[in-house]
Amino acid sequence: MHPVSPDTLVRALHWRYATQWFDPARKIPEETWLALEQALVLSPSSIGLQPWKFIVITDAALKTRLLPASFDQAKTVDCSHFVVFTVRKNLGHDHVDRHIARMAEVRGVTPESLGKFRRMATGNLDKARSEERLDTWQTHQVYIALGQFMASAAVIGVDTCPMEGIDPEKFDGILDLKETGYATVVACAAGYRRTDDKYADTKKVRFKPEDVIVRR
Amino acid sequence: MHPVSPDTLVRALHWRYATQWFDPARKIPEETWLALEQALVLSPSSIGLQPWKFIVITDAALKTRLLPASFDQAKTVDCSHFVVFTVRKNLGHDHVDRHIARMAEVRGVTPESLGKFRRMATGNLDKARSEERLDTWQTHQVYIALGQFMASAAVIGVDTCPMEGIDPEKFDGILDLKETGYATVVACAAGYRRTDDKYADTKKVRFKPEDVIVRR
Repeated sequence: MHPVSPDTLVRALHWRYATQWFDPARKIPEETWLALEQALVLSPSSIGLQPWKFIVITDAALKTRLLPASFDQAKTVDCSHFVVFTVRKNLGHDHVDRHIARMAEVRGVTPESLGKFRRMATGNLDKARSEERLDTWQTHQVYIALGQFMASAAVIGVDTCPMEGIDPEKFDGILDLKETGYATVVACAAGYRRTDDKYADTKKVRFKPEDVIVRR
Repeated sequence: MHPVSPDTLVRALHWRYATQWFDPARKIPEETWLALEQALVLSPSSIGLQPWKFIVITDAALKTRLLPASFDQAKTVDCSHFVVFTVRKNLGHDHVDRHIARMAEVRGVTPESLGKFRRMATGNLDKARSEERLDTWQTHQVYIALGQFMASAAVIGVDTCPMEGIDPEKFDGILDLKETGYATVVACAAGYRRTDDKYADTKKVRFKPEDVIVRR
């Protein structure tokens, strides 16, 4: 691992902003996109359960169908890759078993040897389900992935804009998610800023460090 | 901005893992920490409202007090910087006004000129409050910050472990948050892995890209 300098990181995070106007002519090169796909795949999640699917839309016709469900925000169609973050609702034992099968495959062990992990994971899910906080908990994981995705994009020079201003139910309909158990949480446009996006030069506003960081 | 190569990013994200055993002797140098503090400060949030405070704990005595509220996980005390992510509950117009005052200061305009933004922001908060999803919505933003923090740490070679397995109410008590309007959401230990942490060499398990990425 060759770590990047702290200064390089901070410059990248300053460079990023919620891009309002994407250049429709500029597409993310495949090699660059594959790195961002890895940022999604490798995102941390509680108990490692990865309760998600990421729908990556580059098809112009499909983007256009999503436009009214995005309150007509042009970035939906103008961006290069439009990513819809979905959560697995009512996460069940079948999902844990899928994860365990994958653990066994990657680590070269038997699924049976992971019984203790299985009991812990299913027990936690069952407890959250009975307390009616299962979907809330898993949705939090999706936002971790969104955070990792946007920071990763900034570091490699790709612009993003997180989009909570969408109609998740309409998205679910257009993307045929209704019968799948997955549901739209949030979207994120990715691509490259237009050179005339005035927001790119608008000064970033953040509270002063001393107003949000408490050192103890 | 000098973007990092996609390959460097992916290596960093592969290198990271949920560190179980931190080397208590290794502290994050101040310059490196300041970059991670910037990752927190610069984190994106809905409408830019930054509904959070980050409590950064390096004091050994305070860490020890948090240990039982963290179910005795050693990383609470062994890590270099223990970060508690808190959300501003029942986010109100006063917070919007604080943000507007800061916008005015940074951009050199009057608060009055931001009236349209103020109406949009307070309107959105009021709507979410009436629909009883205000705290949920703001908590999502805190998880974006957590994702940005962990990805940023990985890129500059700092280990982290997200910790949802804590008792938020006990944290609020120990950290004197009860009267502040802020409440503990999640924690994250940051520092450097012990060379004998066997989890560092355990193969990372993620679903195959084709099982979580849907290209449309």
